[in-house]
Amino acid sequence: MANPGVTGRSLVDGLKSRDRKALARAISLVENRQEGFRELLASVHSYTGRAFRIGITGPPGAGKSTLVDALASHWAQSGKRVGIVAVDPTSPFSGGALLGDRVRMGKLSEYPEVFIRSMATRGSTGGVAAATRDACSVMDAFGFDWLLVETVGVGQIEIEVMNVCDAVCVVFVPESGDGIQALKAGLIEIAQVFVVNKADRPGAPQLASELESVLHLKQETGGWDYPVLTTEAVNHRGTRELAGTVERLKVHLETQGHLTHVRQRQALSHLENILRERLHLYLSGQSDLGSQWTDLAEQIVAGDLDPHRGADLIWERLLQSDLPRAPGDK
Amino acid sequence: MANPGVTGRSLVDGLKSRDRKALARAISLVENRQEGFRELLASVHSYTGRAFRIGITGPPGAGKSTLVDALASHWAQSGKRVGIVAVDPTSPFSGGALLGDRVRMGKLSEYPEVFIRSMATRGSTGGVAAATRDACSVMDAFGFDWLLVETVGVGQIEIEVMNVCDAVCVVFVPESGDGIQALKAGLIEIAQVFVVNKADRPGAPQLASELESVLHLKQETGGWDYPVLTTEAVNHRGTRELAGTVERLKVHLETQGHLTHVRQRQALSHLENILRERLHLYLSGQSDLGSQWTDLAEQIVAGDLDPHRGADLIWERLLQSDLPRAPGDK
Repeated sequence: MANPGVTGRSLVDGLKSRDRKALARAISLVENRQEGFRELLASVHSYTGRAFRIGITGPPGAGKSTLVDALASHWAQSGKRVGIVAVDPTSPFSGGALLGDRVRMGKLSEYPEVFIRSMATRGSTGGVAAATRDACSVMDAFGFDWLLVETVGVGQIEIEVMNVCDAVCVVFVPESGDGIQALKAGLIEIAQVFVVNKADRPGAPQLASELESVLHLKQETGGWDYPVLTTEAVNHRGTRELAGTVERLKVHLETQGHLTHVRQRQALSHLENILRERLHLYLSGQSDLGSQWTDLAEQIVAGDLDPHRGADLIWERLLQSDLPRAPGDK
Repeated sequence: MANPGVTGRSLVDGLKSRDRKALARAISLVENRQEGFRELLASVHSYTGRAFRIGITGPPGAGKSTLVDALASHWAQSGKRVGIVAVDPTSPFSGGALLGDRVRMGKLSEYPEVFIRSMATRGSTGGVAAATRDACSVMDAFGFDWLLVETVGVGQIEIEVMNVCDAVCVVFVPESGDGIQALKAGLIEIAQVFVVNKADRPGAPQLASELESVLHLKQETGGWDYPVLTTEAVNHRGTRELAGTVERLKVHLETQGHLTHVRQRQALSHLENILRERLHLYLSGQSDLGSQWTDLAEQIVAGDLDPHRGADLIWERLLQSDLPRAPGDK
């Protein structure tokens, strides 16, 4: 919970002066949608856009945290500021996430320029992605060079979270036989870097070459080579090469104008999410019009009104009114 | 794919005359959002509302399919018509689902009044739930007494799918130690019947009493007792009792007026989904206004425009126009 004595204004000042306590409070404010979070996001917006956001995803047990920590250490050693957002929407408890933070922070504590934060988000699919996006905005405004967003799993929620990143790295292990399936399930469309971790285990070379052949088609379009790297993150093998590949990807995106395009797509998706949220507030009766929809619902349940015609009627009324704002909207 | 020679009109006639081929085609039409699916749904709407929709969910390997088949056989033996919708959004291939259908249809083939259909939906979270809802509407109009909607897993997608059902049954097995966690993660809010399957295995009585103590709080509100049943579905033990419990739940909901309330909530959620879909079409540039949003996105990426102010601007323009319709909308 944000300290009630801390105003949004002083949080913004705290972020500008790189106060880590202000950063932690600001992330909590936006993550929990507390009053004033919209003003805070509006205030920091013009300071965002400098951090490069890379998503790291893959099946459970693939060693993503170890890889993320290795990347963070690598960049911290060369003087870069690194923020980590660990998203685990499948965990129903925030306690575990917070404990995990402390364990990881212990390892990374020798680097004062690394900041790690777990998202304790449990709400809707869209909610996880929105909270991650807004946490990234706050960390971006704080002045990180790199933001690493880590998710567990390869499902729909993970794909939505990855869509708020500038680039995506998917991590596999030889045992995750579902590697190729996961690619077909949609991750191949959004990922640029592929890692086979725990590469000392049997099956690693086969998995890597399988991935390469699946990626062959993708390589023919666009100017990026969609590399498959092999790593042993616990033994620090291949992680320097991975960091180098991510740096090369950043340069590629920046110089080809792709990054601007990616971020415009992110902005359009963000606009849509804001409007969906306002539509939901309008429909869920948090305005004095709410009771009208119950009448429509009754007619639909009675079989007298087709739902699509019902949507037309709501739409017609909506055009004569205005969407309510979420708390904190100006 | 629907036979191009088959019109929506003749599909509706086919459904009315209980032609199973027409049913299969109509489900494909709505599942794949093919041209005419909206007209089909509008045409059948006044015939829906008679089937009771019960969702069966739980972790992988809990024996849900066996339980669903046992319920279907039980009701078919007493002359009821039973439709089964098996949803597996985690499977990226429809082939497996179709093969599964055939294996299960083989077992259930002695009952001509049982119809089983797997949803090969892969799209967005909302897409899976929408396709399931619309498939249920078509099957409802066809004239089933019971609709069993089966999902794998206990994540966000499953909860959304379960929200299109009138009632929900959650299945656990002694090995699924995450049972209580799953309850806390949101399923307890939407489920009315709880099953410990494979009850011959160690740990079953403990799990059942654990569930009972968690459910104790819930029992104090509302007139339903939220029972915990133990079954061995493969040995047909406890499945008759489960069928009886579900029948008792149906009567409870119908006589207390709860079912009407549940269905009104479903209708409101359906209305919201339709409007979200239209909003998406409007924003994704499938109208000649699309390019305007790119300008806004550019300003947002440049840091000159706060996303929430951008949403205001879109909203103002939207109020002066009209949302485009999806294919098939009148």
